[in-house]
Amino acid sequence: MNFEGLLSRVGTGMQQSAIRQMGTVAAQNPDIISFAPGYPAPENFPWDEYGAIADDILRARGRDSLQYGPTRGLPALLDEIMALLGRRGIRATRDELMVTTGSQQGLDLLARVFLDPGDVVLVELPSYTGAITAFRNVQATLVGIEQEADGIDLGDLDRKVAQLRLEGRRIKFLYLVPNFQNPTGLLLSLEKRRAVLAWAADNDVLIVEDDPYGDLYFEDAAGAGDTRPIKADDAEGRVVYLSSFSKTLSPAFRVAWITGPAALLGRFETAKQCLDLCTSDFNQQIVLEAVRRGVLDRQMPRLRAYYQQCRTSMEQALAAQLGEAVSWVRPRGGFFLWVTLPAHVHTAAMLPRAMAQGVIYVAGEAFFVNGTGKNTLRLAFSLAPGAKIVEGVGRLATAVREELAAGGVATPVAALR
Amino acid sequence: MNFEGLLSRVGTGMQQSAIRQMGTVAAQNPDIISFAPGYPAPENFPWDEYGAIADDILRARGRDSLQYGPTRGLPALLDEIMALLGRRGIRATRDELMVTTGSQQGLDLLARVFLDPGDVVLVELPSYTGAITAFRNVQATLVGIEQEADGIDLGDLDRKVAQLRLEGRRIKFLYLVPNFQNPTGLLLSLEKRRAVLAWAADNDVLIVEDDPYGDLYFEDAAGAGDTRPIKADDAEGRVVYLSSFSKTLSPAFRVAWITGPAALLGRFETAKQCLDLCTSDFNQQIVLEAVRRGVLDRQMPRLRAYYQQCRTSMEQALAAQLGEAVSWVRPRGGFFLWVTLPAHVHTAAMLPRAMAQGVIYVAGEAFFVNGTGKNTLRLAFSLAPGAKIVEGVGRLATAVREELAAGGVATPVAALR
Repeated sequence: MNFEGLLSRVGTGMQQSAIRQMGTVAAQNPDIISFAPGYPAPENFPWDEYGAIADDILRARGRDSLQYGPTRGLPALLDEIMALLGRRGIRATRDELMVTTGSQQGLDLLARVFLDPGDVVLVELPSYTGAITAFRNVQATLVGIEQEADGIDLGDLDRKVAQLRLEGRRIKFLYLVPNFQNPTGLLLSLEKRRAVLAWAADNDVLIVEDDPYGDLYFEDAAGAGDTRPIKADDAEGRVVYLSSFSKTLSPAFRVAWITGPAALLGRFETAKQCLDLCTSDFNQQIVLEAVRRGVLDRQMPRLRAYYQQCRTSMEQALAAQLGEAVSWVRPRGGFFLWVTLPAHVHTAAMLPRAMAQGVIYVAGEAFFVNGTGKNTLRLAFSLAPGAKIVEGVGRLATAVREELAAGGVATPVAALR
Repeated sequence: MNFEGLLSRVGTGMQQSAIRQMGTVAAQNPDIISFAPGYPAPENFPWDEYGAIADDILRARGRDSLQYGPTRGLPALLDEIMALLGRRGIRATRDELMVTTGSQQGLDLLARVFLDPGDVVLVELPSYTGAITAFRNVQATLVGIEQEADGIDLGDLDRKVAQLRLEGRRIKFLYLVPNFQNPTGLLLSLEKRRAVLAWAADNDVLIVEDDPYGDLYFEDAAGAGDTRPIKADDAEGRVVYLSSFSKTLSPAFRVAWITGPAALLGRFETAKQCLDLCTSDFNQQIVLEAVRRGVLDRQMPRLRAYYQQCRTSMEQALAAQLGEAVSWVRPRGGFFLWVTLPAHVHTAAMLPRAMAQGVIYVAGEAFFVNGTGKNTLRLAFSLAPGAKIVEGVGRLATAVREELAAGGVATPVAALR
């Protein structure tokens, strides 16, 4: 049977996620040191507390606790998220909030509710692949905006938008990860946050603010004041804000949330009914109890210190072993360190060498919507324990030296986009 | 800010789920007896066994057990699902299988991978609203095929398809729930299963077989032999088959699966990367252990007997209290009893009367893609305990008698579609 003829345009055009592919490589090769997906370190999970919570939930035998739940999310969890948002400076009512099955679902919801084929989404160069894929899968046009050391280049934003307006294109939203951006680790400056919000009002577009890492600042380089969400100063409801418990509690619960104007949240709820009916009620209760019992609050200083140390280990190893060949921006929080190699090196083509050495990363080109970035790569320092970070950077250094010696012009491996 | 102008065509056209809306009504009104959503009875959940399983998983502190998992699903769980499918007569390899976040996600995946705007999907009259919504949200055209007592009307299928071919329409697949259909409870006869498979080959369309209820046959009326999936006899890979643990273990885990030709499963995996990255690894492990430890096998005879008794209670109550005014098809399995009222009664319009009496159902018109079925309603006998079933039917009988006395011509409530 020929299935190709039965596929939709979306089904025909979909692209594999470079991050997910590397996750599969890592899962199948336990000896590989993975700097590829942004996985949190399991060493930090509060196992015993989750055990006690699960035990309490199941002993209580609540009529609703193993049942289908409301599409919006567990009301008590929505209330806790509202309190948590309040501490980030964001006021949200229950009408302005919904639980999502991970933030990826939030991105998919946004794509479906906002984007017709050919609509324009503005993203940074580089930007998060999961968002790029979600927007591309509804056949949106992605236009990339350059970055500076303090985040998105506002001059380039104005130039690109002016050109798009001239072409009569319909710009729907600007997608930003202001805190410790995925993949670059960049922190958007407070001045630029204000400027971007004013720009969005002037140009009548939405801002989609994706913030999984904001609480994971490193105290040697940033504080809570530096990560204040754009949404916190959004008086007119122009910002849709996404965040998640995946990096702080556990990705295995698949509990995240989306907040924005109530009129939009109603649309998101209707869309989510069709995507998965509801997020796991059992997992929502575990997260609810973890917040209520202070597990999340106790985790945060520990996680900040832990990932800061991982970052330092990786930077020291890179400086010692590859300092002459690569450059990077020092991460002030989050999970990622963004590496730039000499212009002629193609990091996707170098990946087989790295895998042969027993280390993986995500080749940077997957994060660029304009075909550039071939000499960049993203290293996640979040998963591998400290000694493995040093060892992994050593393996990477071997691969880079081999690639440089070979002239850095090998053929790229197929399907790594 | 005006959001309407920013919405996509999909975002503008989305419709609320009548079932989900009734679920919200039930959650907000604990005194209401709900015959509306197809929720399993929490009395039957194996709470202690889930507690022991969760405890074991968290004590073991597996590096992967609270982590992001593979998009395809946990390999060990895929193996258990393959064994389970084998007992239903279906041979599937790991390449032909993927875990989904509930079957609703499977339906959404199918919509996105197969359907362009204007493509035709054939569904029964009536059919499951979650599927209807998923297909409509990608702007497919849904064409309804009449039913007979033993399932889909093959004559009507031929007539409709001939007409569609004349019109040059592109038919992508036929969506069927052969076992104890949602909403009618009908069981597709074995003869028709064979005929439908042959028809699909002759007409080069796919069959999407949705089977959440197949194992929940009632031993006084049906057996495993009657529920053999169409997929079991699919030699050429023409059937995509969905099933779930939601009705047998718990909906709160959101663990279901989809199986079909390997070439399609690769597409589904790529699509799922964009929808939610992966289904909760924690929940997949709970389900895995519940299968491994025999919890699922021990549950099945108990659930069959329990829901059979619920069905009997509801039938007896209906016969005693409404026998003169309504008719229904005796369910031989599953969760639903499908009621037809006199032609002039509009069940959506009658719903406020039922709610005033303290009982809810799903008005039948939501299940019809051709605007008919206004005098039908779906009763789920799965959730309310036996005494509540009798009481709820009594409340429904009062509402029906009031409606008949009023002439059955009240204005329908808005937004109940």
